[in-house]
Amino acid sequence: MVETAAFQGERGAFSEEAARKLLGRRVRVLPCPRFEDVFRSLAEKKVRAAVIPIENTLVGSIHENYDHLLNNELPIVAETSVRIVHNLIAPPGVPFRKIRRVFSHPVALNQCLRFFANNPSIERISFYDTAGSVKMIMEEGLEDAAGIASALAAENYGGSILKRSIEDDRMNFTRFFLLRRPEFARKNPVKAASRAVWKTSLVFTIRNTPGALFRSLSAFALRDLSLTKIESRPLRGKPWEYLFYLDFLGHVDDPVSQNALRHLQELTDTYRVLGCYPRGD
Amino acid sequence: MVETAAFQGERGAFSEEAARKLLGRRVRVLPCPRFEDVFRSLAEKKVRAAVIPIENTLVGSIHENYDHLLNNELPIVAETSVRIVHNLIAPPGVPFRKIRRVFSHPVALNQCLRFFANNPSIERISFYDTAGSVKMIMEEGLEDAAGIASALAAENYGGSILKRSIEDDRMNFTRFFLLRRPEFARKNPVKAASRAVWKTSLVFTIRNTPGALFRSLSAFALRDLSLTKIESRPLRGKPWEYLFYLDFLGHVDDPVSQNALRHLQELTDTYRVLGCYPRGD
Repeated sequence: MVETAAFQGERGAFSEEAARKLLGRRVRVLPCPRFEDVFRSLAEKKVRAAVIPIENTLVGSIHENYDHLLNNELPIVAETSVRIVHNLIAPPGVPFRKIRRVFSHPVALNQCLRFFANNPSIERISFYDTAGSVKMIMEEGLEDAAGIASALAAENYGGSILKRSIEDDRMNFTRFFLLRRPEFARKNPVKAASRAVWKTSLVFTIRNTPGALFRSLSAFALRDLSLTKIESRPLRGKPWEYLFYLDFLGHVDDPVSQNALRHLQELTDTYRVLGCYPRGD
Repeated sequence: MVETAAFQGERGAFSEEAARKLLGRRVRVLPCPRFEDVFRSLAEKKVRAAVIPIENTLVGSIHENYDHLLNNELPIVAETSVRIVHNLIAPPGVPFRKIRRVFSHPVALNQCLRFFANNPSIERISFYDTAGSVKMIMEEGLEDAAGIASALAAENYGGSILKRSIEDDRMNFTRFFLLRRPEFARKNPVKAASRAVWKTSLVFTIRNTPGALFRSLSAFALRDLSLTKIESRPLRGKPWEYLFYLDFLGHVDDPVSQNALRHLQELTDTYRVLGCYPRGD
């Protein structure tokens, strides 16, 4: 069955690429202006799935989406990783030598500095969205301009790729989560996941006394459970209280995980499991 | 003595506000286009200090700057925190009712969504920099446009603030580091810091065996040293290896810190102290 996934950004965004990796190339999508709208669309049953970025190798964790995960009960059911490849995209027939202006999101423009250093006559112009810049250039039929965006954006808007992979750093990856409503989380396991290694994501708070985090981690270490992520986030307005993001390898229903979580509960002020899903590539 | 500090962005950026908090209101500044240029200016002795953002309460850690800290030997000597207050700024004499377009960095525009929802006739236009948007509007003398930036940007370019603090979330803080060259790190302690609580920042790598992080943290927990930050970052291209950012309360020269660091060294593949500095506000 073809289903619809909500994501933030314009058609052709990297989140749409993640949606295809997670749900197949035929997935239908609902582009939303803000992350808040993505969560609301799923909570209000406008869509059956949502795809959100959670961290990037250059930019770090996206705290806003952790906040939405905490404020909504929409479990993570899968993860994937997408390499951020920036391409120079113009209307078909426009040759590279005619390009005078390049539009894109400032973060993308800043990740292609070598390209601009090698082409000093080309002006950089900030735009609200990577894929949106290609959409605009195609709609306006600009003949001296290009956008920087994903290959999927070129495909979506009929643009042609003048230069592939102009980003400075190839080690630019974004990790995405697939979310569902709780009633579909267990019924819709990702295919072929039965023999997969499982990952569980959770959030907890502890008061900052010496050794508090160490004791919390003992719940996992004493049971030989591997962590794949740990991150502290100071709670503003609550000095000395911290929120922790933690991922460990294990299925939440395994007896050993259950014991670890029970042990963790003794040591933390609050904790919440955000989801349990097969480890992605 | 008045000294010069390098920072990334245009005059009036939040980094300049941090530079004033760290070095006094009379500090001279060298605005740089990229973080790389900030580090190079300090390394090449063009300036005596550099100010860089390291994490934000909404956006997370700025990994790029951790990479520069690792690739340069430019120690952290102080920290501070700046609340990100977005103001609507126009040329003097332009009344609010005439504003039709608002320019700013897309991240800032996205942090003022309530303002735009309440003023649906105003168009949002992405720009490469917050303070840069005010600079442009003042230079062009636009009479139907405003920028979103810091109060310092208004002061710098002679703009007038039409609306103060239009950001959606007041809990938006950025933490900044002050860096010096190694030969000045010890000689130039921040004033009045003698009785301060000290913080030490370090980075280490460990192989991901179960309990590896737990054992590393024991170096601190067993000595009652408090952590104020811990964050894992997967090393791309090196599966199962992780980089950790860690801050603890203690002076690097205290015997207990020395013991903890010696213990840590037994447990990690590599480790490096990025700086030791008085805890900021």
